[in-house]
Amino acid sequence: MLSFESDYVEGAHEKILQRFLETNMEKVTGYGADPYCESAKAKIKKACACPQAEVYFLVGGTQTNMMVISTMLKPYEGVIAARTGHVSVHEAGAIEFHGHKVLELPQHQGKIQADELRAYLESFWQDENHEHMVFPGMVYISHPSEYGTLYSKQELEALSDICREYKIPLYMDGARMGYALMSRDTDVTLPIIADLCDVFYIGGTKVGALCGEAVVFTKNNMPAHFSTLVKQRGALVAKGRLLGIQFDTLFTDDLYYRISRHAIEMAELLKRGLRQKGYRFLLESPTNQQFIILENTEAERLKEKVVLSFWEKTDENHAAYRIATSWATKKEDIEALLELL
Amino acid sequence: MLSFESDYVEGAHEKILQRFLETNMEKVTGYGADPYCESAKAKIKKACACPQAEVYFLVGGTQTNMMVISTMLKPYEGVIAARTGHVSVHEAGAIEFHGHKVLELPQHQGKIQADELRAYLESFWQDENHEHMVFPGMVYISHPSEYGTLYSKQELEALSDICREYKIPLYMDGARMGYALMSRDTDVTLPIIADLCDVFYIGGTKVGALCGEAVVFTKNNMPAHFSTLVKQRGALVAKGRLLGIQFDTLFTDDLYYRISRHAIEMAELLKRGLRQKGYRFLLESPTNQQFIILENTEAERLKEKVVLSFWEKTDENHAAYRIATSWATKKEDIEALLELL
Amino acid sequence: MLSFESDYVEGAHEKILQRFLETNMEKVTGYGADPYCESAKAKIKKACACPQAEVYFLVGGTQTNMMVISTMLKPYEGVIAARTGHVSVHEAGAIEFHGHKVLELPQHQGKIQADELRAYLESFWQDENHEHMVFPGMVYISHPSEYGTLYSKQELEALSDICREYKIPLYMDGARMGYALMSRDTDVTLPIIADLCDVFYIGGTKVGALCGEAVVFTKNNMPAHFSTLVKQRGALVAKGRLLGIQFDTLFTDDLYYRISRHAIEMAELLKRGLRQKGYRFLLESPTNQQFIILENTEAERLKEKVVLSFWEKTDENHAAYRIATSWATKKEDIEALLELL
Amino acid sequence: MLSFESDYVEGAHEKILQRFLETNMEKVTGYGADPYCESAKAKIKKACACPQAEVYFLVGGTQTNMMVISTMLKPYEGVIAARTGHVSVHEAGAIEFHGHKVLELPQHQGKIQADELRAYLESFWQDENHEHMVFPGMVYISHPSEYGTLYSKQELEALSDICREYKIPLYMDGARMGYALMSRDTDVTLPIIADLCDVFYIGGTKVGALCGEAVVFTKNNMPAHFSTLVKQRGALVAKGRLLGIQFDTLFTDDLYYRISRHAIEMAELLKRGLRQKGYRFLLESPTNQQFIILENTEAERLKEKVVLSFWEKTDENHAAYRIATSWATKKEDIEALLELL
Repeated sequence: MLSFESDYVEGAHEKILQRFLETNMEKVTGYGADPYCESAKAKIKKACACPQAEVYFLVGGTQTNMMVISTMLKPYEGVIAARTGHVSVHEAGAIEFHGHKVLELPQHQGKIQADELRAYLESFWQDENHEHMVFPGMVYISHPSEYGTLYSKQELEALSDICREYKIPLYMDGARMGYALMSRDTDVTLPIIADLCDVFYIGGTKVGALCGEAVVFTKNNMPAHFSTLVKQRGALVAKGRLLGIQFDTLFTDDLYYRISRHAIEMAELLKRGLRQKGYRFLLESPTNQQFIILENTEAERLKEKVVLSFWEKTDENHAAYRIATSWATKKEDIEALLELL
Repeated sequence: MLSFESDYVEGAHEKILQRFLETNMEKVTGYGADPYCESAKAKIKKACACPQAEVYFLVGGTQTNMMVISTMLKPYEGVIAARTGHVSVHEAGAIEFHGHKVLELPQHQGKIQADELRAYLESFWQDENHEHMVFPGMVYISHPSEYGTLYSKQELEALSDICREYKIPLYMDGARMGYALMSRDTDVTLPIIADLCDVFYIGGTKVGALCGEAVVFTKNNMPAHFSTLVKQRGALVAKGRLLGIQFDTLFTDDLYYRISRHAIEMAELLKRGLRQKGYRFLLESPTNQQFIILENTEAERLKEKVVLSFWEKTDENHAAYRIATSWATKKEDIEALLELL
Repeated sequence: MLSFESDYVEGAHEKILQRFLETNMEKVTGYGADPYCESAKAKIKKACACPQAEVYFLVGGTQTNMMVISTMLKPYEGVIAARTGHVSVHEAGAIEFHGHKVLELPQHQGKIQADELRAYLESFWQDENHEHMVFPGMVYISHPSEYGTLYSKQELEALSDICREYKIPLYMDGARMGYALMSRDTDVTLPIIADLCDVFYIGGTKVGALCGEAVVFTKNNMPAHFSTLVKQRGALVAKGRLLGIQFDTLFTDDLYYRISRHAIEMAELLKRGLRQKGYRFLLESPTNQQFIILENTEAERLKEKVVLSFWEKTDENHAAYRIATSWATKKEDIEALLELL
Repeated sequence: MLSFESDYVEGAHEKILQRFLETNMEKVTGYGADPYCESAKAKIKKACACPQAEVYFLVGGTQTNMMVISTMLKPYEGVIAARTGHVSVHEAGAIEFHGHKVLELPQHQGKIQADELRAYLESFWQDENHEHMVFPGMVYISHPSEYGTLYSKQELEALSDICREYKIPLYMDGARMGYALMSRDTDVTLPIIADLCDVFYIGGTKVGALCGEAVVFTKNNMPAHFSTLVKQRGALVAKGRLLGIQFDTLFTDDLYYRISRHAIEMAELLKRGLRQKGYRFLLESPTNQQFIILENTEAERLKEKVVLSFWEKTDENHAAYRIATSWATKKEDIEALLELL
């Protein structure tokens, strides 16, 4: 059975497992104070060209969004996000569970627009009753977005400028960061992100790790006693090496970039093949998630041989399906899929 | 440098790492619906002799305590625990952060006593103002306790009887469960625990896993939509295989028991050696944590060669230190430590 | 200075103050167990023709919404509301602060539509990923709405039917309930509301009381130990007589209805006058809140002589302003206002 | 039936009700921005000899404790209190519901001791694992305490010094503040409290008001957007005049002090009478709450003629009962009670 269900269906890059084996019996202290975490943090700061960055490792994406948002917002603030943002829809209300409203803006292929953000903020501060409303306290964007799309450098600068004007942090969810950085259609690099965002995370779970996300606070703005706040939410890992070793490996010899590039190449191979066969796409995605439109009976037929993700109905007879490539996708799998279609 | 700092200073049992390697490129679905989780659950239910049990894997101990307690309590309830319980002292207020009071009872070498529990419950229900107080909604015990001590079967039965009388669940924190089960001074088995407790967890992090705890709900009492509640607290792992493979391996061929027994044997070797040398203990611990009393200058001298955990001052010139053996402790290390003392 | 700023700018109906004086030195027990609360509850149950109703008095509207919603929802659930609902916009995020998402539906003159509600619920339950989403657990409506509009009996029945089909409670925010019941354009009575809604509240603060709202649970569905939950949120009033006496007075000799009818009559007088003078309205409101469109320079001029509430810009030169009549509005004030316009 | 059940069994001082009547039809703006709130704040600041004070009116005591503690603590902090403190025992877990642990110290007739406070703080900061514990972030004291006892100026200074040394606020719960200030055995005045405490509240509910407490932040330390935080917790009153008029009246012509002194005089009359009759007390209380020890059969007999509050069993045949005088207690009632005993 072929599967393009998601970018987390395989285990971890084999180099990570090898490092686990090599270092297994070393005795190291817990809770992230081990040398692997230290080394990984140094490498990430270097990759971000951001020596003052504070890096913290967490286990998963929703956990990271919840940690960052709930510890950086003041109690009377909410976070602005696209209506389709992961925090708005697919985190089981984790932001609200931790006491904060998600203030939704319209989405444009998964992205928010600077002019709509500005209008929202202006309108809030002009409202005479705003003391009875939730204050906008942060802007959340995902890059790539949930639709695989990317912000351009110019778009990011525009959002960043507005955030600075209104003195609220810009936060980037980089669950699939590698696939953004390695897209051929981007002018946004990790140092640019570190410059324009106040906080972001580099996703591991979907880019070669068994688990793990690296949060980067770029402006000396990590909340005080962050580790205690992490513990309090049950998110502190005793064996910090689990996360340190993985990120240390991913940021050695450009492994993170190389495996991300591979996923992009596989997506390109797929796109070319699909176009040749005349398939339509829901939108133009420059990253590892591709959204193909299938006729319902064909989708039904495919189900028996390949796992895709149903995305949304497009008309009575068609629906969009997501095909996700990853660091682990094999060329043969793409060819087999194209064969099937 | 020798280290007996804790039972989580090494990585994972090598069989676990081997299983990671062997299964790495299999494509499996996420969020705990993979075949490894299924297999591990079946083995745990069998080990508990509890076919109706519901098993759920989480990442760490504080996370597990927070999940179980905050989802099983009603909003007006708190959890009863020993004053020295992990939830009372060392979880950065995770229980209170999630809205519930820890109702503290006196501790006796880390344990609570049935008569004091009963007196507390009676007194609460007799109080005319109890509608203005926090209702006792659960009893939390740790086994082994934070002092390495164990409840006898009779003690557990007494607690369990009271809980049933008052219709509140008995919850056992088994972060070091293996070391309890394999102690030579216990008459408590996993099936007995499954019978007497309403919910408990089998610790992985401190007993051979890289991370992971297995929660067991024994009375068809797993909270509805538990997975959504886990997601909401940021505790849901995308690659459920990370946890499933580890517990499947630990519960294959009695591995969990065998490595736990090894830690007990190492603790016994240590105890014999220390007794021969005339050392005193803070208390008699039948498990892998030993609490030795050191004269301050000796403790100072040892610091340069071995890592122990400072526990508490016992008088002006002495203090208790914890020495933890584990699944990974080598006989040579025990001998080296005895040599140093 | 004239003021039509809101329906809470005066104190309390004089009969309430008289009752305070008459009963002042009687010694009664606290926390709502006094005879005035008992009497008021009995009168409200009778007015609702709902003998099994459970009535609870709280201090204010946001407090009541927060109490009802946060205690009736399960932790994985959110509340469905119109995008313009009070809970969505003007409660400083009280619902989210207490851990729950407001799931927003489009608004139609402040109301939600049954077909859109049904579509939302259907879509949620069909979504394969709904375990990662916030479950719809309640429907919130305000009657009158924030725009002064009313649900017809048929509309209410349609919403109620859907809620019963999906087994979620229908909750009506009746901050201005009296003005709804006494409108000439309604076929909805208090017994109908008690029949169709699972819980609602009868507003006191905006209808003649100094403070106070009466929550009515109609289906034996008051959350267990509700009083403890109220205390826990700091909402329990020691001198329950403060609320009991007010509602007992309001529900004696139809006072609540009579003063509400007066506000409606004042609004009608105003509307007639405004129409004669050729003023336009933002929408047709059958209750005590009227939304008049003013040219900007006229609005500026009026500011010095009368307080109105700015509502929203309608074009470059015009904006809508709210004029609220109340139980306390005098005919002379309406005439003076018409004079000014 | 006589009643000494509590100090909140009567309504409000008649001057307050008169002011309600006199001002009833004035149109004033809502949410505490009315002239009565302004005037009351000015009078309280003057009474505190603290011109920089920020005063905020809330409805009840638990609400006030919850508001002050949950908005002044950082998320990783808890509040230190006596084991018998109101926040520890009788607020249904309101502090924990809002996410914070109550860190309990031993009580000495309801009070905490400076040396035990210092030892607690020293021990916390010396603990190597304190990042895994709840940080002490505030000290809570009640004055009078729940046992009617008072801190001396010297005791308050000692607590205040420690709090300043450790940079945490000292918070005084003054639910019965008037009875403390007017005791004959105190050297503590309102200006001294304003000087030594960082925040405190002046109780209205138990000292002549229908409801209401006045929080005083003395060091320019009112949390930002406090009003929004109050709204978010459902504690904002629309008709702020309800609170403003009451405190304005209480702080006009020393009314608050005069009625408090009356309660003290009534308590003294009672004490003298009881002593003459040979009754014993649980402890020596210099305020309006007296704790008398009664033989069980006498207590049983009294129940039919007078309401007292059961406090605690003192031996098999005796128990302590609380007799509370108040601003409203009549001399005849004291005499009638003495007659009965």
